[in-house]
Amino acid sequence: LVSILGLSGVVHADEGMWTFDNFPSATVKQRYGFAPSPPWLERMRLASIRLAQGCSGSFVSPEGLVMTNHHCAHACIEQLSTRERDFVATGFWAKTAAEEVKCPTLEVNQLIAITDVSARVTGATQGLSGGQFYEAQKGAMAQIEKECATGEDVRCDVVTLYHGGRYDLYKYRRFQDVRLAFAPEFAIAFFGGDPDNFSFPRYDLDVSFLRVYQDGKPARLGEYLPLSPKGPSAGELVFVAGNPGGTSRLTPLSQLEEARRSELPNRLFYLSELRGILEQFQTESAERRRISTALLFSVENSMKALKGRREALEDPAFWAQLARREQTLRRAVDADPELKKACGNAWDAYAQAVERFRPMRDRYRMLETGRGFLSELFRFARGLLRMADERPKANEKRLREYADSNLPALRQMLLSTAPLYPELEITSLTFSLTQLRRTLGADDPFVRRVLGARSPRELATALVTGSQLREVALRRSLLEGGKAAVDASADPMIAFARAIDPEAREVRQRFEKEVEGPQRQASEQVAKAQFKVYGTSTYPDATFSPRLSFGTVKGWREGDRDIAPFTTLAGAFERHTGRDPFALPASWLKAKPKLELSTPLDFVATNDIIGGNSGSPVIDRHGQAVGLVFDGNIHSLAGDYGFDERDNRMVAVDSAALYEALEKIYGAERIVRELERGAAAAKATSDHSPF
Amino acid sequence: LVSILGLSGVVHADEGMWTFDNFPSATVKQRYGFAPSPPWLERMRLASIRLAQGCSGSFVSPEGLVMTNHHCAHACIEQLSTRERDFVATGFWAKTAAEEVKCPTLEVNQLIAITDVSARVTGATQGLSGGQFYEAQKGAMAQIEKECATGEDVRCDVVTLYHGGRYDLYKYRRFQDVRLAFAPEFAIAFFGGDPDNFSFPRYDLDVSFLRVYQDGKPARLGEYLPLSPKGPSAGELVFVAGNPGGTSRLTPLSQLEEARRSELPNRLFYLSELRGILEQFQTESAERRRISTALLFSVENSMKALKGRREALEDPAFWAQLARREQTLRRAVDADPELKKACGNAWDAYAQAVERFRPMRDRYRMLETGRGFLSELFRFARGLLRMADERPKANEKRLREYADSNLPALRQMLLSTAPLYPELEITSLTFSLTQLRRTLGADDPFVRRVLGARSPRELATALVTGSQLREVALRRSLLEGGKAAVDASADPMIAFARAIDPEAREVRQRFEKEVEGPQRQASEQVAKAQFKVYGTSTYPDATFSPRLSFGTVKGWREGDRDIAPFTTLAGAFERHTGRDPFALPASWLKAKPKLELSTPLDFVATNDIIGGNSGSPVIDRHGQAVGLVFDGNIHSLAGDYGFDERDNRMVAVDSAALYEALEKIYGAERIVRELERGAAAAKATSDHSPF
Repeated sequence: LVSILGLSGVVHADEGMWTFDNFPSATVKQRYGFAPSPPWLERMRLASIRLAQGCSGSFVSPEGLVMTNHHCAHACIEQLSTRERDFVATGFWAKTAAEEVKCPTLEVNQLIAITDVSARVTGATQGLSGGQFYEAQKGAMAQIEKECATGEDVRCDVVTLYHGGRYDLYKYRRFQDVRLAFAPEFAIAFFGGDPDNFSFPRYDLDVSFLRVYQDGKPARLGEYLPLSPKGPSAGELVFVAGNPGGTSRLTPLSQLEEARRSELPNRLFYLSELRGILEQFQTESAERRRISTALLFSVENSMKALKGRREALEDPAFWAQLARREQTLRRAVDADPELKKACGNAWDAYAQAVERFRPMRDRYRMLETGRGFLSELFRFARGLLRMADERPKANEKRLREYADSNLPALRQMLLSTAPLYPELEITSLTFSLTQLRRTLGADDPFVRRVLGARSPRELATALVTGSQLREVALRRSLLEGGKAAVDASADPMIAFARAIDPEAREVRQRFEKEVEGPQRQASEQVAKAQFKVYGTSTYPDATFSPRLSFGTVKGWREGDRDIAPFTTLAGAFERHTGRDPFALPASWLKAKPKLELSTPLDFVATNDIIGGNSGSPVIDRHGQAVGLVFDGNIHSLAGDYGFDERDNRMVAVDSAALYEALEKIYGAERIVRELERGAAAAKATSDHSPF
Repeated sequence: LVSILGLSGVVHADEGMWTFDNFPSATVKQRYGFAPSPPWLERMRLASIRLAQGCSGSFVSPEGLVMTNHHCAHACIEQLSTRERDFVATGFWAKTAAEEVKCPTLEVNQLIAITDVSARVTGATQGLSGGQFYEAQKGAMAQIEKECATGEDVRCDVVTLYHGGRYDLYKYRRFQDVRLAFAPEFAIAFFGGDPDNFSFPRYDLDVSFLRVYQDGKPARLGEYLPLSPKGPSAGELVFVAGNPGGTSRLTPLSQLEEARRSELPNRLFYLSELRGILEQFQTESAERRRISTALLFSVENSMKALKGRREALEDPAFWAQLARREQTLRRAVDADPELKKACGNAWDAYAQAVERFRPMRDRYRMLETGRGFLSELFRFARGLLRMADERPKANEKRLREYADSNLPALRQMLLSTAPLYPELEITSLTFSLTQLRRTLGADDPFVRRVLGARSPRELATALVTGSQLREVALRRSLLEGGKAAVDASADPMIAFARAIDPEAREVRQRFEKEVEGPQRQASEQVAKAQFKVYGTSTYPDATFSPRLSFGTVKGWREGDRDIAPFTTLAGAFERHTGRDPFALPASWLKAKPKLELSTPLDFVATNDIIGGNSGSPVIDRHGQAVGLVFDGNIHSLAGDYGFDERDNRMVAVDSAALYEALEKIYGAERIVRELERGAAAAKATSDHSPF
């Protein structure tokens, strides 16, 4: 009953994270009597945004106001806080436009055009394999992106869809001046904390409002979503526009087996220990709690998601379905001589690459993905070092993330003004160096060279306290000074990054040549087979690029209980114990008498979403935002591999609760009036519009 | 090539943790030209001991001197330490007999008789099933043990061998007055720390000497092992007498699958987080480090062992062998109509019990096995409460661990004088209550009743700071006062244990009836089938009861390298970096000029051991101790499921290093002379003995 994409070529029920240029309007029409038109789809695409750091959002006024989750802006809110003024605890509210404050590391992307570049990308790799395949593909993508990116305010990404069945160029308008306008207290944004995370019923007001600026002024926008004063009704058709981060519904079984057996549990062991360290770190002082909450939240959130995925893959019935999906396709390929010749070997080739990854896995993860060096200062140091080494190279020869099209994002990261906390840096770096030693072994020559006679803590302390990279000015001078400046730097973190770079690059190169290249090539073949056997009227796995899903507001049956689709403000007060994480903020307790307690607070719907969709608008057929996605229920975690409409639910804040809280709890007049003006203007327009 | 017991009925190579009354002397004779005689075996049995808390050891003088590992006495050494005198850091050395100090919680067992009681145990369960089977078997065992245990100095355990193929009554002499005589510094006992744990080459002096007392005087013993001044040679035949804790070589596949899929990863998630908490706790002060080192060590040690087991079960080739073992036996059973009728259903019945366990698993683990309440004070409270409730019942009706035969051990635990550290108690209890809430859910009625409005930390703090159970006198009065006294107690930890006991007992009872009873019954049938098909000339899975294994001192081939079987004192100095965990203690650095650096320090041998064998003597054919087992290599971790002579190795301290260190580094004259006298006396005897 679980829908596993590709099993029959039929997409079931409300399944699918559809690209905007291949949306199944006919299916929606058939099920719900409403067919999104091309102009409607274009408006939704332009009104919804991506937060480049890993979230979604929407424009909700013509003056650049962005609605997203609190947890998507949590890092910013923490970065703007100080020991004395903790906006995570107190919330943030800019009474005037002038009080809106710039977030040090946020970037907003608005998708303005999609172009199919498949022919050019696949043409570049004709007849190549392994490392050459990888290099040629990377070069072609970098070239296409460079041609497209005409300025800093344009971001161009070649997106690999259907695991290589199609390559599309996504052109975004890029905003890097993103300011914080409003955020409630963490206590209500994440009411219920980790215990309630990925569950429902739920009582969270997980919202924040940002604003994109251009040339120092609020950006003027053509399209936005009016925020409806009334949320959706039970049974109503709703859409979600957003950027699901990644799914594995078309991934070869050999890779999923590796995930089940090694990748997922090992990441969970790593994160569990880090969680323990941070939990204890938090008890040591209020300030330590303050500076580590965002990191702990992200660790806990990842853990819960990864556990759900692990458990889905460990379910024998679920696994059998995944296996059947692959067998069915492979049998169809084997039955067609021509297809067999072209693609028959792809699964084995893929599996061999998975095998080749195994002996280099730990080293690759530790040295190159950052698991061995968990430190912001190290990220700066490696970024500056590699920027200096890569920039002089031809664009298409660089490491993928140093291509021209990505430089604005890198520059933003490297010049971030976010505060750095040496105690937390030392703690996380000590932890990860300990993991490095434990994973590769104390006698590994690399480990010996890194640590020498020092303990992980000694080394971490020396690097963090010795480095001056927390100074933005120093980073700027190294960035601008290029290779000469970086080579001349004696900053200990730079020196450290320099010392380990040859080995990190070497394992990465080996990975690209022996694992990633062959896998990308095999994936293309599998995708071709898939298209040939099942046709193209399906959706690609999620890739953190804009998608649209459809569904209905609807509860589900859990064991012998029916879970209703809505909660109310009253429920939040009932759940309040006064103790973290079930303590409502003082503002709520104070405002209680004024509130309409029957106002819907959160709701669930059947739309197919996944991590990355956080902050997505829930949209009704009139193109109004009626809710704000912030989570999925526990069953949604299996959604990485397959969609089950029976119990997979997204969780959203109701737009009625947003108005009620902004107005009566926070007195956020300025935002409320702006939202109301936007809604009224849109209504005036829509009275004359075809939808 | 891995030998998986039961596959063919043939035991391969040096495999086997043999019972003393079924030792394969003929096989050893055939392989090594030496057949241990019955008197030789009896002497080894009497000279080797069990530490009831989970280790092994040996008598090494006629005056009750016990040799075991430092890590087996670590808890005692920590308990005897104070903030001012930290024997874990400095080592401990009783210059005179009067300075030997009693360990608060150690118990030594010497196996004096084995009796087959299979007929009586299986007779008691004829025609019963489920909960009745469990109750009848428990009752029969309690009765047999009670009849045997004639005093506090006798301990009697009915041991389930071959998963119910045989029930033996093991009668032990029990010593509860166990004193610490010598321990080196932790830094050399556990040189290399967690990074080197379960690895080789190795440079540890993981030894301690205890002494058993009787009536306040050193116990006089008939049998002991002379400690040889010279360790073994490469290629030499050696024996290991000890108490392997548990293996799963005959365990049905359904249980192993559950272990692979759920039990092992979930324990590892739990332990990883606890490890993180303790690692951070350790950084907070020297005193916090001191009081938490033993716990952290035990967590890390468990984790490494569990990871090794998980990885073995995740190895597809290894798993295929396990599956083949079971299929082969089941096919043989199905081919024999009579056997099929008697045992054919056993595997399915077992698997069904595994299935029934799944929905109660989390609750059982959290409420009853202590994972939800990690606290010494809680252990006291539950022990006192249940002691009061159980003691008035007939012996055979009690919870298994409250049977008369176990009361001395319980009493020792409940009246322990070991210090308690409130900060550590609060930390571990907070952690486990958080796990309880996370695992069962914040809305679980039990969780709600336990926590109420309180956070885990608030509850833990209230219980730990409010309880007076750290006072031995109070515990004694509650223990002696029985039910009336416990009922009258308003101690918050007692009240807490009382409040949750009905639900803990209920899930336990359900577990015994629906899971453990059916599994014990099915296991008996599998064992019968095994005996019928393969005969009885094999060894049972480990059960933390005395066993003897044989093997040879021998390195192994690791990838493309040969690992030599010995390390030397010189190697320890080479590995010294001066930083924990690679910092040799000052005593070693000072004594270096005096030392014969070519003295062998540690060695490996092919003997089949597992956790619980720590502290076991390595014995040569002359019955001398030539080494001291303290670990296994990384490949030994797969030994839980099968033995592979190619690379499974135990790791031991060489007896030559023990003499060299005691004499030249520690100047432990008194112990050295005692050991030498013992060795000389034994030599005098053996000159006239048959072996």
